[in-house]
Amino acid sequence: MQGTLVVAAQQRGLVERYQRVRAASERLCRALRPEDCVAQSMPDASPVKWHLAHTTWFFETFVLRAVERPFRAYAEGWAYLFNSYYEAEGQRLAREHRGLITRPTLAEVVDYRHSTDERIERWLSGPALPRSALALLELGLQHEQQHQELMLTDVQHLLAQNPLAPRYASALPAESAEPERRFIAHEGGLVSIGHEGRGFSFDNERPCHELYLAPFEVGAWLVTNAEYQEFMADGGYRRPELWLSDGWALCRREAWQAPLYWRRHGAEWRRFSLHGEIALDPRAPVCHVSYYEADAYARWAKARLPTEAEWETLAREEEDAAQFLDFESFVPLTRTGARGLFGGAWNWTQSAYGPYPGFTPAPGAIGEYNGKFMVNQMVLRGGSCFTPPGHVRASYRNFFYPHQRWQVSGIRLARDGATRRVLD
Amino acid sequence: MQGTLVVAAQQRGLVERYQRVRAASERLCRALRPEDCVAQSMPDASPVKWHLAHTTWFFETFVLRAVERPFRAYAEGWAYLFNSYYEAEGQRLAREHRGLITRPTLAEVVDYRHSTDERIERWLSGPALPRSALALLELGLQHEQQHQELMLTDVQHLLAQNPLAPRYASALPAESAEPERRFIAHEGGLVSIGHEGRGFSFDNERPCHELYLAPFEVGAWLVTNAEYQEFMADGGYRRPELWLSDGWALCRREAWQAPLYWRRHGAEWRRFSLHGEIALDPRAPVCHVSYYEADAYARWAKARLPTEAEWETLAREEEDAAQFLDFESFVPLTRTGARGLFGGAWNWTQSAYGPYPGFTPAPGAIGEYNGKFMVNQMVLRGGSCFTPPGHVRASYRNFFYPHQRWQVSGIRLARDGATRRVLD
Amino acid sequence: MQGTLVVAAQQRGLVERYQRVRAASERLCRALRPEDCVAQSMPDASPVKWHLAHTTWFFETFVLRAVERPFRAYAEGWAYLFNSYYEAEGQRLAREHRGLITRPTLAEVVDYRHSTDERIERWLSGPALPRSALALLELGLQHEQQHQELMLTDVQHLLAQNPLAPRYASALPAESAEPERRFIAHEGGLVSIGHEGRGFSFDNERPCHELYLAPFEVGAWLVTNAEYQEFMADGGYRRPELWLSDGWALCRREAWQAPLYWRRHGAEWRRFSLHGEIALDPRAPVCHVSYYEADAYARWAKARLPTEAEWETLAREEEDAAQFLDFESFVPLTRTGARGLFGGAWNWTQSAYGPYPGFTPAPGAIGEYNGKFMVNQMVLRGGSCFTPPGHVRASYRNFFYPHQRWQVSGIRLARDGATRRVLD
Amino acid sequence: MQGTLVVAAQQRGLVERYQRVRAASERLCRALRPEDCVAQSMPDASPVKWHLAHTTWFFETFVLRAVERPFRAYAEGWAYLFNSYYEAEGQRLAREHRGLITRPTLAEVVDYRHSTDERIERWLSGPALPRSALALLELGLQHEQQHQELMLTDVQHLLAQNPLAPRYASALPAESAEPERRFIAHEGGLVSIGHEGRGFSFDNERPCHELYLAPFEVGAWLVTNAEYQEFMADGGYRRPELWLSDGWALCRREAWQAPLYWRRHGAEWRRFSLHGEIALDPRAPVCHVSYYEADAYARWAKARLPTEAEWETLAREEEDAAQFLDFESFVPLTRTGARGLFGGAWNWTQSAYGPYPGFTPAPGAIGEYNGKFMVNQMVLRGGSCFTPPGHVRASYRNFFYPHQRWQVSGIRLARDGATRRVLD
Repeated sequence: MQGTLVVAAQQRGLVERYQRVRAASERLCRALRPEDCVAQSMPDASPVKWHLAHTTWFFETFVLRAVERPFRAYAEGWAYLFNSYYEAEGQRLAREHRGLITRPTLAEVVDYRHSTDERIERWLSGPALPRSALALLELGLQHEQQHQELMLTDVQHLLAQNPLAPRYASALPAESAEPERRFIAHEGGLVSIGHEGRGFSFDNERPCHELYLAPFEVGAWLVTNAEYQEFMADGGYRRPELWLSDGWALCRREAWQAPLYWRRHGAEWRRFSLHGEIALDPRAPVCHVSYYEADAYARWAKARLPTEAEWETLAREEEDAAQFLDFESFVPLTRTGARGLFGGAWNWTQSAYGPYPGFTPAPGAIGEYNGKFMVNQMVLRGGSCFTPPGHVRASYRNFFYPHQRWQVSGIRLARDGATRRVLD
Repeated sequence: MQGTLVVAAQQRGLVERYQRVRAASERLCRALRPEDCVAQSMPDASPVKWHLAHTTWFFETFVLRAVERPFRAYAEGWAYLFNSYYEAEGQRLAREHRGLITRPTLAEVVDYRHSTDERIERWLSGPALPRSALALLELGLQHEQQHQELMLTDVQHLLAQNPLAPRYASALPAESAEPERRFIAHEGGLVSIGHEGRGFSFDNERPCHELYLAPFEVGAWLVTNAEYQEFMADGGYRRPELWLSDGWALCRREAWQAPLYWRRHGAEWRRFSLHGEIALDPRAPVCHVSYYEADAYARWAKARLPTEAEWETLAREEEDAAQFLDFESFVPLTRTGARGLFGGAWNWTQSAYGPYPGFTPAPGAIGEYNGKFMVNQMVLRGGSCFTPPGHVRASYRNFFYPHQRWQVSGIRLARDGATRRVLD
Repeated sequence: MQGTLVVAAQQRGLVERYQRVRAASERLCRALRPEDCVAQSMPDASPVKWHLAHTTWFFETFVLRAVERPFRAYAEGWAYLFNSYYEAEGQRLAREHRGLITRPTLAEVVDYRHSTDERIERWLSGPALPRSALALLELGLQHEQQHQELMLTDVQHLLAQNPLAPRYASALPAESAEPERRFIAHEGGLVSIGHEGRGFSFDNERPCHELYLAPFEVGAWLVTNAEYQEFMADGGYRRPELWLSDGWALCRREAWQAPLYWRRHGAEWRRFSLHGEIALDPRAPVCHVSYYEADAYARWAKARLPTEAEWETLAREEEDAAQFLDFESFVPLTRTGARGLFGGAWNWTQSAYGPYPGFTPAPGAIGEYNGKFMVNQMVLRGGSCFTPPGHVRASYRNFFYPHQRWQVSGIRLARDGATRRVLD
Repeated sequence: MQGTLVVAAQQRGLVERYQRVRAASERLCRALRPEDCVAQSMPDASPVKWHLAHTTWFFETFVLRAVERPFRAYAEGWAYLFNSYYEAEGQRLAREHRGLITRPTLAEVVDYRHSTDERIERWLSGPALPRSALALLELGLQHEQQHQELMLTDVQHLLAQNPLAPRYASALPAESAEPERRFIAHEGGLVSIGHEGRGFSFDNERPCHELYLAPFEVGAWLVTNAEYQEFMADGGYRRPELWLSDGWALCRREAWQAPLYWRRHGAEWRRFSLHGEIALDPRAPVCHVSYYEADAYARWAKARLPTEAEWETLAREEEDAAQFLDFESFVPLTRTGARGLFGGAWNWTQSAYGPYPGFTPAPGAIGEYNGKFMVNQMVLRGGSCFTPPGHVRASYRNFFYPHQRWQVSGIRLARDGATRRVLD
């Protein structure tokens, strides 16, 4: 009885939180026209309209379908359009064709959102709900936040295709402070990583488990544009000895000469951003680099990338900092003062994305959320300036293919600890 | 002096004609939402918004730039976006990326149209103009009409990608009459083809020249859906002996089983059209077939496709019929009574598209209009239900690659004349 | 009775001719090692071993199978390997996989050849044979000669892939004389083209038919390497206005800068040939150009390519010259004295390859020989230095896709006749 | 002094070992014809002739070039042909073109081998040599053994392309015993993996380092063909929930229905092997499966694949068994009695191939041997029936991309230990 009352209060809190998260998605679209919301610039990216509809379909399918009696889908045929990758939910549109779906229109998708919001809020306002249903709602909110970041990365990629370089944000970006280039040392030993405790986590952060680390050091700053330009000036994109073999092949095939969105104007490099084409801030974190570039940079700098366990071990000590991302910015910034490991740009780690020991995905469609992607991708940590506030934590694992560059992905260095003795 | 007055009257007539043609393009968009106007469903097709802008750029570039002093382009960077293929006009966006250009928006493109219209009309309302400038204006109008047909074919292709099968036109399509299946005979001999006289023609219709034809017959009807289904039922898509080698390879590679847009529902075939998905009208002309399918059908029917010279020789005798296309329809129809060679669906001919003897393209960029495409394509004749009224004529040469199916392309049979003696 | 005796003598002659043609194929392999005979350098080319086996399969299938009782295929499964493209003969190996078939070995294929030769010769030495069977034997010999030319073009292409530039022929190539640059004029009018009379011809040369030509002129020489280098020096590969659109797209995509096999060494161009890498002979005919290059060159030279009818009309007057090709050479030569239209390098014509009026392919598999390729290709005329002596004639139609360059294809200019009046 | 004498004896031993390893490569070619040795069946595979030359180039470049004074390459231009992937050694032939290099011939490559062998043996017979030079010689021998395995996998892949299904080995394969299906348990805790001690190891096995393992169990047998067929019968290739997302996409795209080389004959599956097409031995280890298939099988079997650390931890205890591989067989066998972890088929592990903590590649070209491939690949352990005897050990790390199937790769199951408590 007592428990139920507590839950009721929790439910009221959830309504508010639900509204806040959902409204944030729509707020991100204010600067966009219907035309901007329908196009798909590459198979990896999705139209904004699709994001708005897919996140709604997620609530409709995984929350409302479980609790509404009778349940009736908002519109026939839309599940086919807005299911992303859930095999258990049936056939669906090929990912690369999302930009061809002009109907429903943006306005119709917004109607779909609002109608779904009403259904969710009505349900939340009802009698006390089982924990499992609330867990799915929470998953839907976390999922929506992930798509908020993708909406920004995908819009940026789309606008970047336009030679007119249109702006999403009209204000000028803030400027970075000079980073403090020091390494944080850790003596290694047996540590625990992974999520434990009561707060939300994705299944791929669990179970919390032990592992053994050799002594290591991790940089307290994100590599800056100025540092990265030194790498470029020193032949970074022309020296195969700095690169992994797959990365070098790609670098040659696609004639890479700089991070994604960088554009040369005579002797000067500028870059495309949500502010349009801007000057490079030499002190700001470099971003939109692939794993291959991050790895090559680290090799050039006589360092390496951190493992995800190294990163997390240090991040656990400053988890509160995860709340202070620079989400109001549309470019990563180096802040005055030691900010630490969170925010700015996602940190590529040298860890391949895989299951933690004892990992068990949830049963049913929702079990496809993270587990089936555990091959061929690399883990990124720490969030970025596009990540909604409150979304990441020390155990949070993001993952992308090593060739991908359209996320706000940057570079943090690591190196073996000073006490390490090489054995051979 | 007299000449000038005549020209002035002609100019006034042109203003009206200009307004009528331009308005027709915008009228075609009334049923569309901004989202529909921005997407590109394949590299061969273009977004409606692009068509609206490109045709405007054509007037701005080839008419206004020649006559306005000083000339100033409407907007910087738009020539790069809206130049289709004119090498002499400089670098331009890769054709397959047209769907990624969300800005300028549809509304901004419509503003561009209206502003350009004012400039054109102001100029036409001025002093008498040289014939060469008016010729370019006329070319611009003919060009716009060609794009009107493409807007319809491209929108149909785009909407066909949507599993919701959205409709462009809400009314039901009209029904066809049963065609009269007879052949029109011609005794052959020396004939003239190509355009002569004063009316407008494209450069590829000129010069009018003589050629020698053996006796031949051309069908007075377009092959119907019912006839084509007999071919399908007789293994048309499974019998390589009916097909050209390149066509058979494509048929296998793409697993063709029917014309483009046909969809099987159990035992029944339906087809996607601008009216949405509709039942097949057995008496209506089959359309959306490639040259390969047209050729295979003809071989199956113990006939062949006409040459363009055969077609034109007969069409000269009924050129007035070219004015009575069924443009108000969005599907090709078989009309009661002998309609003849024009309208319904474009007729694939067995003639490769090439230069007429003595062909000379115009100097400058405008010379790229038709001449540089004179390889690898096949000639189509006669117009279709998507062709604006008054646009085609007996000497009109349309051309597409033999694999292309998204145009309203159909089949008319021909055969060697009765008196022909085979020589070996 | 008399007829039979004549046929018997004809049969004896055929044995000798059969042996001569067959031996020629094997003689072409003397300079090759087994390794050279198995590799396939691109889907368009075939391994020499495949050519040797396929031509043998042709005799076995289309001659022996019709006359031997009982017929038994030489080896099970070989028809699958050595059928080229005859759909009526059943499934077969994908063309691009021919280089993966290492067994049967070269020696086993030579055994197959000799065994088949014995069977053919035994049959020819028997009683008088029906004309139809002898016609198929003759077709087989003509077919073998076509493959002799392909063996040379394909070996050249294969050896060209090897950076060691191995030689097929050890002798140095002969040198060319300076060509006489004059045009041969014809007044046009009604002419006949196509094969008539008793000698052998392919079905695509028939029927002989009339057509009407405007006055024209055709160059008496093949464009030389020196002339072609002028075109290159004048920006030939950088000026889109000289090119057909499809050609220009290809030229850009593949970064063409010269004919196939040309290699730049500092300021000098050399070219790979069956003699290995050699200096360019400025007076020799340029070869290994695509249709697109031939067409662009002609446009640059203020001329055009001849039509196949123009070419044949003039060639009929010098058909005896077809016997004097420079087959003993492995590079095309310009000979002292007027040689005329035959030999050196195949002449690209501006005629798309299609059926002559009244064309009827043979029934059955053999009907696939030429007819099913009558789309997308361009006609070449006149033979080359790789063509076996006696193989071509005035009505002979070769055909390749406009992008293909590995044949010995060159350029002959044409232009409209002096008396031509342009009509518009 | 004493040390030098010891080294001299060691050098004499090396001559013998060198001769034995080198001869083994040539012995593998005895069943092949020159034609078999030149073809390349896919970019991942290389021609046998190339393997023979490349391994020789390795000795010439990394051993002889360092010690011969003056050094002169055996033949100009061959380094370009036979350098595999060493960027520091300069430009080289694109991997996928290896099958186009018909010269040098097989006989010439064998001459190259023998000449190089003489140079190596002459050098080894000289004065005592520095340890570093001998280390490179040893690396060359290990390298040659790796290529011996590849020669077999590549020849098998090549012969499999031939519909005649030619045999490499004429004898029938041996039959397997029934495996003992039990799991070997380990309690976990801190363990060491990686190579230590004096024997040879590759750089990627070093440094030996500690890590922490949870309790686990690893199967004592390789999954058999019969077991795998149960998976297939239970919809293994039709149930996406069993697959990783990338694997499922590939499975669909390539229409996988069984392991590579399996062929259905009515209700029966057979498979292509070096013995030609053979019946499946139900008790023999399944092989030629991708990582994706191994992973899906394990999921279906309610188990998982072992990590490389788990595998190595158990393998250390039976390292002697590594010497008893079934190299004389050309199919993997299940042997009577507990054989353990080595031999039969390589074991896919769930470990992504990456650097061990503190990994440092060698300086110079030789540093490219393993390190630059440390992304996108998965580790395989234990050797196969194609692995030369004495080549593998407990710490040996093989690695391939998860989609690759042409290696002798099989499946060993693992599962979490019984005492494991799941934390959430």
